[in-house]
Amino acid sequence: MISSPLIEELIQSLKCLPGVGAKSAQRMAFNLLERNRDGALRLSRTLHDAMEHVSNCERCRTFTESNICHICADPRRAESAQICVVESPQDVLAIEQTLQFQGRYFVLMGHLSPIDGIGPNELHLDMLQRRLEEEKVDEVILATNPTVEGEATAHYIYQMCQKLGVNATRIAHGVPVGGELEFIDGNTLIHAFTGRRKF
Amino acid sequence: MISSPLIEELIQSLKCLPGVGAKSAQRMAFNLLERNRDGALRLSRTLHDAMEHVSNCERCRTFTESNICHICADPRRAESAQICVVESPQDVLAIEQTLQFQGRYFVLMGHLSPIDGIGPNELHLDMLQRRLEEEKVDEVILATNPTVEGEATAHYIYQMCQKLGVNATRIAHGVPVGGELEFIDGNTLIHAFTGRRKF
Repeated sequence: MISSPLIEELIQSLKCLPGVGAKSAQRMAFNLLERNRDGALRLSRTLHDAMEHVSNCERCRTFTESNICHICADPRRAESAQICVVESPQDVLAIEQTLQFQGRYFVLMGHLSPIDGIGPNELHLDMLQRRLEEEKVDEVILATNPTVEGEATAHYIYQMCQKLGVNATRIAHGVPVGGELEFIDGNTLIHAFTGRRKF
Repeated sequence: MISSPLIEELIQSLKCLPGVGAKSAQRMAFNLLERNRDGALRLSRTLHDAMEHVSNCERCRTFTESNICHICADPRRAESAQICVVESPQDVLAIEQTLQFQGRYFVLMGHLSPIDGIGPNELHLDMLQRRLEEEKVDEVILATNPTVEGEATAHYIYQMCQKLGVNATRIAHGVPVGGELEFIDGNTLIHAFTGRRKF
């Protein structure tokens, strides 16, 4: 239907972007062709470079184009002797934006999910174990998502830490700051009550 | 903040897509890196090819990678002796999907807008005039958008057709099929009444 096989192909490939369907892809393709060819060429280059050169950090497995990411390479980060375990590089980003955590990370790139064939090997937990044995680590902060899989993953790593004699903590679950009690689900409220602290 | 300058650059370039802000761009970048590197590399290639090779058809100015688009190159299309004038290649697509129109097109790639410096030259109306003089054209169907600029553009081309002695028609404005009268704006209702036909 479209006058050009190249445009047809562009629309098809744009659909690989999350949240982009046929209509949005068509709008994007024509918009780029009409108004922003330079931006599109730049996107083409950076897409290629990022996909070819970005891989996992050899220590914490987050995304980086070097062998070791800039957090693992920072000597001041080692002093805190804390390792925060998260599911994805976006979680590292979110925690870094708080400017509160000064330790290092370990990124699982997923969570335990036997039904999808994702076990401890797929999460490279042997790498984490080696780090716990070799580095000076006082505390492992388990910051996986508060989902069924995230909790199971946290529990598995907690048991690993126990065997190695390393302290493990879990981030607090409760009412989000700015949230209203009446709209919070029951499970979160139970966590908020059991996790209450002295005022 | 992000561990990799390459990922940072990818997120920045993804923002050139219409409707994609900082948060969506970040989600897209990590999603492609984690789950769909092949799709991203394909997108990189097709973006490059489309931006380099797609230009305007020499007759109707729609997007094509050939000199003449497949509609203009179709000899059966010339027989109908109708030219439909639209604002953008997407409009051609929408009309082609109805399978009703068998003539040729002229794509303005915009509309008259003196405030933005877009006059008859920018819309290449000289090309349209030459076609009206050289080709056998019985009717020019003005299918610009029913906006102020679209109407002004249609009127300008109507006057051009009058000088050349070519019939010009304007697509009907009225209540969309499936629409409900109570939700239709007054202007459209006026058009629907003045444009009424015998049952």
